[in-house]
Amino acid sequence: MTAHVTRPLAGVRIVEISSFVAVPLAGMTLHQLGAEVVRVDPVAGAADYNRWPVTPDGASIYWAGLNKGKRSVAADIRSAEGQDLVQRLIAGSGVLITNVAGREWHSYETLTRLRPDLIHVEVSGRADGGTGVDYTVNAGIGFPLVTGPADLASPVNHVLPAWDVTCGIYTALAVVTALRHRDATGEGQQVRIPLENVALATAGNLSFLTEVMVNGTERERIGNSIFGQYGQQFTSSDGGSFMIVALTNRHFRDLCETTETADAVAALAKTLDADFTDEGERYRHRESLSGLFTEWFAAHTAGEITAALSATSVLWERYRSFAEVVDDDRVRANPLFTPLRQPRIGEYLAPGLPLSINGDYPKAVAAPALGDDTAGVLTEWLGLSEDDIAALTESGTVR
Amino acid sequence: MTAHVTRPLAGVRIVEISSFVAVPLAGMTLHQLGAEVVRVDPVAGAADYNRWPVTPDGASIYWAGLNKGKRSVAADIRSAEGQDLVQRLIAGSGVLITNVAGREWHSYETLTRLRPDLIHVEVSGRADGGTGVDYTVNAGIGFPLVTGPADLASPVNHVLPAWDVTCGIYTALAVVTALRHRDATGEGQQVRIPLENVALATAGNLSFLTEVMVNGTERERIGNSIFGQYGQQFTSSDGGSFMIVALTNRHFRDLCETTETADAVAALAKTLDADFTDEGERYRHRESLSGLFTEWFAAHTAGEITAALSATSVLWERYRSFAEVVDDDRVRANPLFTPLRQPRIGEYLAPGLPLSINGDYPKAVAAPALGDDTAGVLTEWLGLSEDDIAALTESGTVR
Repeated sequence: MTAHVTRPLAGVRIVEISSFVAVPLAGMTLHQLGAEVVRVDPVAGAADYNRWPVTPDGASIYWAGLNKGKRSVAADIRSAEGQDLVQRLIAGSGVLITNVAGREWHSYETLTRLRPDLIHVEVSGRADGGTGVDYTVNAGIGFPLVTGPADLASPVNHVLPAWDVTCGIYTALAVVTALRHRDATGEGQQVRIPLENVALATAGNLSFLTEVMVNGTERERIGNSIFGQYGQQFTSSDGGSFMIVALTNRHFRDLCETTETADAVAALAKTLDADFTDEGERYRHRESLSGLFTEWFAAHTAGEITAALSATSVLWERYRSFAEVVDDDRVRANPLFTPLRQPRIGEYLAPGLPLSINGDYPKAVAAPALGDDTAGVLTEWLGLSEDDIAALTESGTVR
Repeated sequence: MTAHVTRPLAGVRIVEISSFVAVPLAGMTLHQLGAEVVRVDPVAGAADYNRWPVTPDGASIYWAGLNKGKRSVAADIRSAEGQDLVQRLIAGSGVLITNVAGREWHSYETLTRLRPDLIHVEVSGRADGGTGVDYTVNAGIGFPLVTGPADLASPVNHVLPAWDVTCGIYTALAVVTALRHRDATGEGQQVRIPLENVALATAGNLSFLTEVMVNGTERERIGNSIFGQYGQQFTSSDGGSFMIVALTNRHFRDLCETTETADAVAALAKTLDADFTDEGERYRHRESLSGLFTEWFAAHTAGEITAALSATSVLWERYRSFAEVVDDDRVRANPLFTPLRQPRIGEYLAPGLPLSINGDYPKAVAAPALGDDTAGVLTEWLGLSEDDIAALTESGTVR
């Protein structure tokens, strides 16, 4: 099995009926761990098949990015014949992941009649049964009102669909946990993951909700500062932006020494009667401290700042654009990324799974086009003949 | 095993040597799935033990939130005796998760000498070996420069530590996948997860990096709009903020009808020669469309808007503060949350795991205080006697 150590889910088959981010990411992640994942779509493609960004020819870079390594089956899932075929694929594989909620024909109740030990994982919008997507869930949860410059009054949406991404990895976790449980007991599972619950649990686990319940206080909008720690954004003489974080006393001492403010900070501590070995005090007096450090940053170029900070324990980073990231060795020389020839899109550096197993990163594999694997999967999984498949294609049941 | 279906990892033991968010969240998640998780800390506590927010008495609400349900062992891990004890705990459990990288005494190489089939999962900062935390990784990845109002020049940090959260769930996924692999093959695994790689892979999977490589274009700052779709923020006559999303033609039609703009939108389509059944066209002309919708939102109260949108397919949400969320039935009447008596903190509604298994959400369990379980774990896991433990306490090896 050594050959399989970076493909620990080899031999597992999974059917995905999905669109958008969370469940496609889950399916791709499970593929990257070794599973064979078949995404089933309507013959015209799901609602995300042409999603932006697209190439000049209209091929969705987005879709290719979130469906790498899967096999694609296109079927008329509104017809009884199409539904029957897909039910047989699910029953054969034993695992369904979906965000298409509330469809009787692929519900847990219906499918367990065909496959009693089915693992059925369904992502939905809101916990109370309502619809929701990342950007509406995020609006309802509290973060946009505390994100952005302190003097801003309006909400600030995140650009990263963080709830979708988190929900996708929870979905993959639920599948693997259920697989292990089924291996041991023979039992399947019905798992439900409302996207809103992922957001609510995270806001609770990270204290954003709990501090209201316990202290009656609410997080304020503090710009680019980090709550409860010393963390701040600075600008260099040539306009570079830096994020600087000092979590520990060592970080903070190094920051004071590098910025030549050790004496001034000591004097400030005396004046304010503050103990800067306490992270809470560093947070409370962050504006006074930042005032002292700002001068040094403003007097040095981005290059000088980079050189000076690199020699210290301070946690820091220069803000970069996506274009700068792409040109950086952190992408170009990173084994996470490998060249991928993606039909319809071109060749680019694609990320694999962001974790190495025994030293190797599971690599990116190209995404299919809609229906690329319909015939192959129907043959391999269901034993259909060429004639069977020709008839199904003829009748419009598959594509 | 039916009793275990919501505790599928029952019987698994895990040692966690950690601080901050990612690995503590991973350990808590694994506990919520049924594992027994022992967090090992230095006798004075790790760097996160007093992290804000805190109660008026100084107890960390933050720490309690991310360590629910674990057992706590405090040991002098700088001493050979303390290290030996912790090594025995890890060897006995067979699973270590840690973000304390680069320590010889709990490295994969050292520990596999004691436990050849060890599962060793290590979270680090940057892929190239450098240090990094969520807020520095995020600065380096590109998102802050495209977040916030379009006319803003400076970066906007996220408040949600999205990379830490995502990395934590990847860590839990890595552990369960490795457990299943070990069950089947007897082999352990060494897994490494650089936080920066989680961010880079996500930025790649979601096309932020790929569109630069393929199209040579880069995402722009577009405020609260959603890229490639119709999604926008509106304000009611009484100052309520709403996020409105129309992904499909049905959503968009309903939005036009509700805002009584169907005729105006049709006229606009004619004028612009635009096809608003194409999501890309809706995105391209978002400002013209929003101009038409804005008037209706500005002429209605938040209550009226809520009532009108509730009857439609439109995806929408009112922006809320954390305090509003806490008072909402989505928390108060949500089975995800259960009352928790948390020593040192008080009683509050705490989230469990945000997924239900066969209809039940794994519930929140109180967090320990530092060292609460030292004696219990040393007795149960290593068979130490009361006298052994008294001697270790006396010598300062454990607390």
